[in-house]
Amino acid sequence: MELDFLKRLIVPAESKIVLLIMDGLGGLPREAGGKTELETAHKPHLDALAARSALGLTVPVGPGITPGSGPGHLAIFGYDPIENEIGRGAMEALGVDFELGPDDVAARGNFCSLDAQGRITDRRAGRIPSEISQALAQSLRSIQVEGAQFFIEPVKEHRFAFIMRGAGLSDALSETDPQKVGTPPLPVVALQPAAERSASIANQFIAQARQVLAGEHPANSILLRGFSKLPELPGYQELYGLRAAAIATNGMYRGVARMAGMQVLPVQGTSIADEFTTLEQHWNDYDFFYLHVKQTDTAGELGDFDLKVRVIEEVDGLLPRLLALDPDVLVVSGDHSSPAVLKAHSWHPVPTLLYARHVRSEGVAEYGERACARGSLGVLPAKDILPMALAHAQRLAKYGA
Amino acid sequence: MELDFLKRLIVPAESKIVLLIMDGLGGLPREAGGKTELETAHKPHLDALAARSALGLTVPVGPGITPGSGPGHLAIFGYDPIENEIGRGAMEALGVDFELGPDDVAARGNFCSLDAQGRITDRRAGRIPSEISQALAQSLRSIQVEGAQFFIEPVKEHRFAFIMRGAGLSDALSETDPQKVGTPPLPVVALQPAAERSASIANQFIAQARQVLAGEHPANSILLRGFSKLPELPGYQELYGLRAAAIATNGMYRGVARMAGMQVLPVQGTSIADEFTTLEQHWNDYDFFYLHVKQTDTAGELGDFDLKVRVIEEVDGLLPRLLALDPDVLVVSGDHSSPAVLKAHSWHPVPTLLYARHVRSEGVAEYGERACARGSLGVLPAKDILPMALAHAQRLAKYGA
Repeated sequence: MELDFLKRLIVPAESKIVLLIMDGLGGLPREAGGKTELETAHKPHLDALAARSALGLTVPVGPGITPGSGPGHLAIFGYDPIENEIGRGAMEALGVDFELGPDDVAARGNFCSLDAQGRITDRRAGRIPSEISQALAQSLRSIQVEGAQFFIEPVKEHRFAFIMRGAGLSDALSETDPQKVGTPPLPVVALQPAAERSASIANQFIAQARQVLAGEHPANSILLRGFSKLPELPGYQELYGLRAAAIATNGMYRGVARMAGMQVLPVQGTSIADEFTTLEQHWNDYDFFYLHVKQTDTAGELGDFDLKVRVIEEVDGLLPRLLALDPDVLVVSGDHSSPAVLKAHSWHPVPTLLYARHVRSEGVAEYGERACARGSLGVLPAKDILPMALAHAQRLAKYGA
Repeated sequence: MELDFLKRLIVPAESKIVLLIMDGLGGLPREAGGKTELETAHKPHLDALAARSALGLTVPVGPGITPGSGPGHLAIFGYDPIENEIGRGAMEALGVDFELGPDDVAARGNFCSLDAQGRITDRRAGRIPSEISQALAQSLRSIQVEGAQFFIEPVKEHRFAFIMRGAGLSDALSETDPQKVGTPPLPVVALQPAAERSASIANQFIAQARQVLAGEHPANSILLRGFSKLPELPGYQELYGLRAAAIATNGMYRGVARMAGMQVLPVQGTSIADEFTTLEQHWNDYDFFYLHVKQTDTAGELGDFDLKVRVIEEVDGLLPRLLALDPDVLVVSGDHSSPAVLKAHSWHPVPTLLYARHVRSEGVAEYGERACARGSLGVLPAKDILPMALAHAQRLAKYGA
């Protein structure tokens, strides 16, 4: 279903929609036949809500596809995550809260070590401390090349986001990292004729960077990967007439939410409870809230089954505060699975709950992978959740007579 | 799956398929946690049939989309309801059993009231009685404009279907109803250059109508909305080699069935039993029967939960007559949901039952929303039902070697 089709059916309403995303929510049992993290958690509020909700399993990108955070979020926000690919450079820039614009081409930068012959001896410059990296980034900001403006935003240790801004810049550019030591960095090559000028600008920047960093061993040069522009998405206001707000403590999620035209709200503090406080404070100002819980994914990637269980229980303990706001539609889901036993994102579908006054509820007081697999929403693309949320919020008119 | 793909697999067979559509069948519980209309109904025959059938929930148009009758029926007939949009004017003409052809552009007409300055004072001309409307329609039939022939078909009170017929006419035309009083009607404007002549013809008709109706206050002019041609669909005979018949007491459904190339059978009487009698009378003459029950939707739109339950029970009581005919394939479904608690069409998926000799049956003697949610057909697009019916009727050859 095309977004334009949805857009023409939109009608105004006073209803409020909340999308509560526990990152990497889906899991696996610790041992075969056991319970997943979500099934293990003691979560009386989520289970009670499940009885009044429709359940299903969402597939973020496609069957068998393990999503990164970008595509996982685009899908749960209702966009096609394959048509709208977010490149690695753009994700790196979003991750440090850099507000990428339509004239920006971003790349993932590494400080690296070169020998006297210009051959790479360390692709990560000995993982220099972040403080050194920040000083080096500052010195790179002095570089000037005709046709573009540059931004260098430190990420962590040897990593930084590189952004070049200028009218008509292209991201059809090859990477400079040869992915091995003993050879010089590769030049940036235009992958399309229209990218020739952009390639030249990037190469001039790199040449100057090498001069600026000449005395800074081990970080005496840079590597750039994943040149990318942001896909241009129509936002929630334009598409759905929704005043949408995002609550997230990590830059990458704020960035993807900004792509969807959401207003990113400031959070005082870094706890999940702080995010719920932000939700309460801004409740009257928006129609749609995306609230992101990062800690489930972190626990999953650490392989800490018990920690992931505890994070889910913490969210469950906060749920009454959300329910007290009386949202018209509440979706609880994840952007992908991150089973602790895999210590990584995975391809498994994501347990999803849709609550609304006129939802056709299951009557089963259990929110878990297996309960969702038997749910009335079935196994469905994650991007189908948003249209259903809009419908249950009475924001979609009838199609046809 | 494209219809052309299906068409090339078609093989002849002697089997008979029945599509029993209870309009707006899907429902919601009266109160949270309760039973829906279908779940409440005492329906021993449908429940017994469910045990020998496959069950599922069909999505007529897309997730969250509330279908009108046109798109809901196109989907259950196996056509894509978004690609094949039926405009409001065309639906109005179908509703009065007007046989729209490929050269016809239809619109929804209203008689309206204008003041001496030509400003609208009542968009519905005081809802004049149908008898007056019929006489006025008769007088409009005298109007002649070069390049088109006109048909004026009264619907009810101030409403009529307006059809202009002529080679090369376009429906890319704007509406004349400003949707408010105190301003004059809008002229018809061509939305594409190729529609200029059609706009001119429509405007000449309206100008003459104003003269003809000048002395007929309150109905002294007309408004036209929703100009549309019928989408041209390949029919069941052409696609599937099916001699298909439609049994429906309401013009709109007869019209959509005619679009699919079905022969519309005359029904003696207006009861559901009368429709079953028609089915019996013509059993030997066709391969495919669509039997439409309007009363479930009417009850749903009235908000009469109990009436909807009783209509379902009435259909259940008639089911043995249908089963006595021994259809090879029987699909029981709806074109959309019309929960009594919403008093309107809704986006909720539709409980669907597929019976055939070689269906993989559930063994669960219950036909209801929740039973269908757990059914082996899953949650599926409504347009996928027809190919499955054809397969179970032994009318589809193997694909590939």
